[in-house]
Parts: sequence; structure tokens; C-alpha cells
Amino acid sequence: MAALEAVGYGQGWKENNIGHEPAYCFTDPDDHNLEIYYETEWYDPPEHLCPALKNQASRYPDHVIGLRRIDHINLLAADVRATRIFMEELLGMRVTEQVIFDDGSEKAAWLTATNKSYDVAIAEDWTGTKGRLHHVTYAVDSREAILRAADLCLEHNVFMETGPHKHAIQQTFFLYVYEPGGNRFEIANAGARLILAPDWKPIIWSEEERKKGQAWGLPTIPSFHQHGTPFVERANATPDD
Amino acid sequence: MAALEAVGYGQGWKENNIGHEPAYCFTDPDDHNLEIYYETEWYDPPEHLCPALKNQASRYPDHVIGLRRIDHINLLAADVRATRIFMEELLGMRVTEQVIFDDGSEKAAWLTATNKSYDVAIAEDWTGTKGRLHHVTYAVDSREAILRAADLCLEHNVFMETGPHKHAIQQTFFLYVYEPGGNRFEIANAGARLILAPDWKPIIWSEEERKKGQAWGLPTIPSFHQHGTPFVERANATPDD
Amino acid sequence: MAALEAVGYGQGWKENNIGHEPAYCFTDPDDHNLEIYYETEWYDPPEHLCPALKNQASRYPDHVIGLRRIDHINLLAADVRATRIFMEELLGMRVTEQVIFDDGSEKAAWLTATNKSYDVAIAEDWTGTKGRLHHVTYAVDSREAILRAADLCLEHNVFMETGPHKHAIQQTFFLYVYEPGGNRFEIANAGARLILAPDWKPIIWSEEERKKGQAWGLPTIPSFHQHGTPFVERANATPDD
Amino acid sequence: MAALEAVGYGQGWKENNIGHEPAYCFTDPDDHNLEIYYETEWYDPPEHLCPALKNQASRYPDHVIGLRRIDHINLLAADVRATRIFMEELLGMRVTEQVIFDDGSEKAAWLTATNKSYDVAIAEDWTGTKGRLHHVTYAVDSREAILRAADLCLEHNVFMETGPHKHAIQQTFFLYVYEPGGNRFEIANAGARLILAPDWKPIIWSEEERKKGQAWGLPTIPSFHQHGTPFVERANATPDD
Repeated sequence: MAALEAVGYGQGWKENNIGHEPAYCFTDPDDHNLEIYYETEWYDPPEHLCPALKNQASRYPDHVIGLRRIDHINLLAADVRATRIFMEELLGMRVTEQVIFDDGSEKAAWLTATNKSYDVAIAEDWTGTKGRLHHVTYAVDSREAILRAADLCLEHNVFMETGPHKHAIQQTFFLYVYEPGGNRFEIANAGARLILAPDWKPIIWSEEERKKGQAWGLPTIPSFHQHGTPFVERANATPDD
Repeated sequence: MAALEAVGYGQGWKENNIGHEPAYCFTDPDDHNLEIYYETEWYDPPEHLCPALKNQASRYPDHVIGLRRIDHINLLAADVRATRIFMEELLGMRVTEQVIFDDGSEKAAWLTATNKSYDVAIAEDWTGTKGRLHHVTYAVDSREAILRAADLCLEHNVFMETGPHKHAIQQTFFLYVYEPGGNRFEIANAGARLILAPDWKPIIWSEEERKKGQAWGLPTIPSFHQHGTPFVERANATPDD
Repeated sequence: MAALEAVGYGQGWKENNIGHEPAYCFTDPDDHNLEIYYETEWYDPPEHLCPALKNQASRYPDHVIGLRRIDHINLLAADVRATRIFMEELLGMRVTEQVIFDDGSEKAAWLTATNKSYDVAIAEDWTGTKGRLHHVTYAVDSREAILRAADLCLEHNVFMETGPHKHAIQQTFFLYVYEPGGNRFEIANAGARLILAPDWKPIIWSEEERKKGQAWGLPTIPSFHQHGTPFVERANATPDD
Repeated sequence: MAALEAVGYGQGWKENNIGHEPAYCFTDPDDHNLEIYYETEWYDPPEHLCPALKNQASRYPDHVIGLRRIDHINLLAADVRATRIFMEELLGMRVTEQVIFDDGSEKAAWLTATNKSYDVAIAEDWTGTKGRLHHVTYAVDSREAILRAADLCLEHNVFMETGPHKHAIQQTFFLYVYEPGGNRFEIANAGARLILAPDWKPIIWSEEERKKGQAWGLPTIPSFHQHGTPFVERANATPDD
């Protein structure tokens, strides 16, 4: 907090939150509004949502997709490098993978504060706009759960942007969908992948490697580099990788 | 029909059925009540159950277990052999697998009228009662769907008798549950297994092989040989594997 | 055989085959070379490939992809309609699904001689060439097995043309790869889908429906309509659907 | 280290290790030999094991079971409570779940030093012997991978003690096997389950809850409480669930 204030990003405490105690608000160099808090209200399920197994918060979902937990957030940034450094130095996160092009420009970064291989991803915003969201990701228990999710999205007219497929970077199995308001959501499964080595060295993907697309050959689609929220008219977008 | 009447099992036509045209009624040597029909009313889903893909009958289930179709029926029989011969000779079914003990007694048989490896199974009723049901089986798309079904049964207090596990015989992945009335249901997945060879020779499992239990070592539980519907007090039940 | 000769497609018996007795050879209207036979030599595995479970032909594969059985063949045809009618009338197959465009032209057909929803598929050859192969398909036990196959193909530099994804037509989960000689292979899983209704009515997909691509939104790629074997220079190929 | 020495468990440094720098050796109150180290030699795969994706250590396994990483170790202990307290106080681990019987005796504990829900488990040794191993666990990417592992163990005559099934405690999907020397191994998948809450409160399972067996009803088998390595004749073993 002192550190955030020292560099001018701190914005003070926000009281009266739903589900958690006061949160400290701040921005990053790309003007994303961020908050951190510690004290949380533990979920107390109503009678009909009490689980059969007491080591889970709520009843096993018998309907819809059955998301298990938030996995990570992906931020679009006009300046990936500055935002990445902020996450490392001010928030104490570790970089696990990066995309750095031949001219040295950082195109994307994945950082973690836990044993998950990433909690935050940062991707270049081709429109040059600051502070936008790329997507929020929820984890499910298996790749099969994602295939089932795709069938449900089909029946419910949920727009599927791309997937299911496997990322080369981080190797997560994914499906990207848009909610009615236009925000992109990812449903993902990382298998048994965790970063347990305290001395993990970041994996750097080159421009050429990035051009190969996803793990099994699916091309990365242009909208993936352009669509973010809030929506902006495409300004200085550049050719796709 | 003529054949069934000739041997005294025919019972005549039943009219006014729900969902299908008149059915011909008959019994087998073990007094099970059976019916066959041809003309069926195709399901016409209401608006909210219309599927996104027109090659399926109804909407992809977004809740509960999501059974896809009936797979087979398993009949308890006081006389497995007589019932098996009836299915072969009168109904034109083919035997695909059998359990025959060292003394030559037939303990179970699996028969098919399609390319599924079995449409009907017959298992010895230890109580010596005729005409009982062992279970009805529904197919789901994957083994993963059965694991999910187990989680749902746990949450909904559905009694799980045994499984999920893999049968040695027929190699089906299974979960057995009881519905509130006490009838046993199986949820099963056969993977890619089909009997496509027109000259398939029945697989015979010996007493010793049967004693090994299920494919991965799960013992076959006693209730599996005793519990049937309608329920009867255990009479002359005998020890088994 | 008499029927095939009567219409001039019969070509006589071929002796000295590997693994099966004499086969009757014939062509279809699109000049594909076809053979049928009945008597087959059952596989007798060597000691080290004997399975633990006697109801399977060979040991469960502990390596590579683990294909379970041939599923179907897909033929490119200059004239889909003529080939489809041949399969129905001469080979006694049933049509389960079709693509028919607004001008009445048949673009593709799926036919079966079993309870599988298709044993043969016929797709229009955009180059106008007769007698080519689109692909041969092997079935695996689960969709998860196909995802694993994709990981193995990636490691072994096997070209993956498209997938894994789910077909809208027939709803099969698929992955298309090329073997080193250029032939296309599909690895597929149909879940619990079978055509068990003897009075199944063909599903007709329109031009507009076909344009939607695969089930979850993956576009059908151009090579899918052009690449076949033997390879030919693209001649009168037409715009993609 | 100083802390371990202060309580008399420290044993000094071990040099000349394979794959890692010097390790500090110590015991716990139950006489298990333990070591900790930091500096590790990163795996440098030979040419033929280089992975297609540079963010994994080695080639994706195209054969056998395909274990992905060590998941946890389970120690038998004559005194569960003392060993649990040692892990908490000396090694800084957090308890996530426990079995405590009605008389207050601790029967089992699960502790973590990461975001995995357990890195070490401690289970009561019914024979009263100190210092034994219950099992070592490897993680795989999916539950489906464990079902495949069971098929492979069946073909390779690997003894499967129990499973595949789902633990009520920790909810891990499991399969227990013995290697030829008699040590028990678990192959497990935890789905998306992680302990991300820094203020997680241990889940306490009572005697009655423990008696219910595994999540879907599989009884906990007696050998699970008796078999450990090194092997000892059953001495003062007591009845249990």
C-alpha cells in the first residue's frame, strides 16, 4: 500500500463491499482499476445448496456448466511491458511465460502469485487503448467438462469465439465465449499443471513460435487481438500474428 | 407371433399404448412379461426443448445426468438356460457372452439383436424366483459422464450399489443405482465397442474367471445376485463370487 | 453380385487375399474400387499381445493412440447423387444424413449398413475428379482419447488438418490428420450415438445450415473440400461453403 | 535447520546427491527419514525426448500411464498427532483436513506447503509400527487418464488394491497399486481443486463420517490400514471402517 502510494498508483480504501472487508484500490500503469483485500466472508450455503461432502463450499452443480472457481484474469494493455513490471515489482508476482517479438517488444506476459501457472495475463491491445479487459477465466475439473460446456453454449445461443482447443502457451485447454454484454469469458482446464519450482525461469515465446497458433494447429483468430471491453472502434490495429 | 403362439407363450395384442402402436404381448419361460412393437410415434419436442442440432431428438440436457438412450435390459431368471434359448430361437437374438460354471450350469447370458454387444442380459436369480427384473440400463456418451453421474447421485441421496467400475464381461463402464421404488438402474458406457462381425463366437467365462470380480479388481457384491424387483425374501440363495 | 454385374459394375473375384477369403470386386459410378467379402481369418495374437480380458482381440494398447476399430470410409465423388443411389440400391445401405443445396444438388451423404450412424460418407470433389478418397476413420473409446491423440500427433510431427472439434452433421467428435503419404485419416468418437430406429428418416442439411461450419463454430476449412488422394491439381474448384 | 536441531531431529547435510545439491536430513517424531533441499538440477532431455512445446520438461508420453508429477506422500505413523504437529510447527505446513474420532484421537491428517490441498498425509498405522510409508502419489491430467491407467495395470499384471474411485476426504480421484517390491502407489487427479484461501480452516471428519467409506460408497478396505512398507507382521491392529 505504501509502495503503491509512493509511485502514485494508490487510491485509498473502499468500504461497504459485498462479501469482503475493505479493499485497497489502485491502478496499474495501463489504468486498469484494481483492488485487493484479505478478510473474506465465507460462503454459507442455504439448506438446498448444502453439499453432501463438507469439504466443498456448495452443492455439486447438477445443471449448466458447473464452473469450479475463478482461475485468472487477462488484461489488455497498451503497454504490456510497463504493466508486467508493475505486477512483478509492486504486487510481487512472478513471470512464468512471455511473448517477446524479434524487435524486443513484449506482446504478452503471464504472471502468478500462487502455484497456478498464471493468475494474471497481460496481452497487447492492438487498438492502443488503455485499461481494457481481455477476459476472465473460470476453471472446471476436466477437459471433458469443457466439451460439455460447448454443447451447452450451443443450445443456449452463447457465442463461442474460439475453441475448445489447447493453448501452446501454458498448455491450458480452453473455450472462449462472450456473455450478452460483450465481455469475453474463458472456461479452462490446466490438467495437473502447476508451478511448484520456486526457481522457475520464464519461458519466452518468439514471434515465429507465436505465429504457429495454438497447440494443435488452430490459428489464433484476429478478434482475439482486437475484441476487448469496454468496446472501442478499431484504431491503430496492426496485422495479426 | 405365430412362433410364439405355437409354443404357448403368445398372449395377444395390446392396444391403446402411449407413444406406440399396438404391441404384441408374450412371456418367456421365466414368466417375464414382454412386448414388441414396430410403429412408434416420433418425439416432437416442445419449443423450449428443440435442439440446436436438428439430428437429435431433443435439446442437449443442461442439467442432471443426461442419459442419451436405453441401452439394455437385464432379467433375473430362475432358469437362465431356458430363457437364453428362448431369446435365441424365438426372438432371433445372438449370444455374445456367457457365464457357464464347471458343472455346466448357465449362470448368465448376454444377447443382442443389433450391433450393440448386448440388448438383453439374463442372470441367475439366487432366490429361485421367476420373472424378476435385475436392472434397466441407460447409455451416456462417456465414462466421464458416469463419474459426473456419481457426483450427482451423491448430492441427491440416490443409493449407489456398486461402481463406477468396468465390467470384465462386455467391458462396459458402469454405475448401479436404485430408484426410490427399489428398482436397480445402470448408467453405462461401452466406448467404441460394437459387435460388427456377423460370425462373432460367444465368449464363455468360467466359474474361476467369474470369481475374479470386475475388470479392475472390484469384487462383485452379494446384493448383485440377490436384489431384484419385485422384491422377495431371500429363499434358497446360495453363496457365490 | 448378380445385381452388380447386371448394371456393369461387377469385376469378379479376387483370390489370395491376406486375412480374408476371396473378395468380390466392383466399382461404383464414381470409379472407386470396392471389394466385399464374408469369410475372415480371426486374429490370433502372439503371446505378448494376448489380452487380460478374453473378450477383446488383442492387448489393450499401452502406447501411441490406441485406435479401437475402423469406423467408416469417406469417398470423394464427382457425382455424389449417383454414388449415393448406388450405395442404397446395390449395397442395401440406408441414408441417415445428407447435405442438399438450394438448387437441389447433393453435396454429401452419409449411409449405413449397421447401427452405426454411418459406415460410408460421400462428399463432393471440387476438382471434379472421380474415384478419390477423402479419408478413412478409426474409432476410439472417448473424446478424451482424441485430445490425447492430438498431443501425440504434436510430438510426432503428424500434420493435423483440423480439429479436435465436433461435427454438426452426425455429431461425431473428430481430429483429421495426414499420414506421410498424404492420405487423410480421421480419429473419431460418436459417444453413445447409434441409429437403432429401423424407420429412421434422413436428416437433410441445407446450404445455409452447412455454412455455419462445425457444431461449436469452427469454420470448415477449404482444404477439406479440395484435398483428397490420389492428389490432383486443383481444377474447377468452387467457392467454399 | 536450527529449529530441527533444537528439538533433536536434525541429522546434518547429505552431499553427493543425484539431481540436487546438498540436502538437510532429519527425522520426524515417528522416525521417518526426511530430507529437504533447494538447489535442483533442471532436467535436460536427450534429443529424442525433447518436447514439441518448450514449456514442458520432456516429451508428452506416448506410452504407458503418463504420470505428470509427484503429487504427495502419505506416511503411516504410530502417533498421527505428534507427526502432524511436527509438520505444522517445524516445517511450516498447514492442515487442510483431518480425521478425529469421538474419543479425540487423531487418525489422519492432510497438510500442505503449497496451493495443492495436500503435499503430505499422515495415517494411523494399525500395527503400531513407527516410520513406515503408506504410499507415494503421482498426478495425472484427468480422471480419464486414471481409468486408462487401470486398463494398463490390468494388462501388465500390476496389483490394483482399490479404485478407481473418489475420496470423500480431499475429493481426489484415485487408483492404488502396488509396485513389485510391495510399495503402494497412488495415481490421482484433483480436478481444479486447490486451496487458494490463505485463511482456510481445516475440515474435520468424524468417526461416523469416516465410516461411510469413499465418496460414492466404496468401502475402505482393511489392507488400506494395515499394508505399509517396510512390511511388518500385523501386531496390534484394530478393527476400523
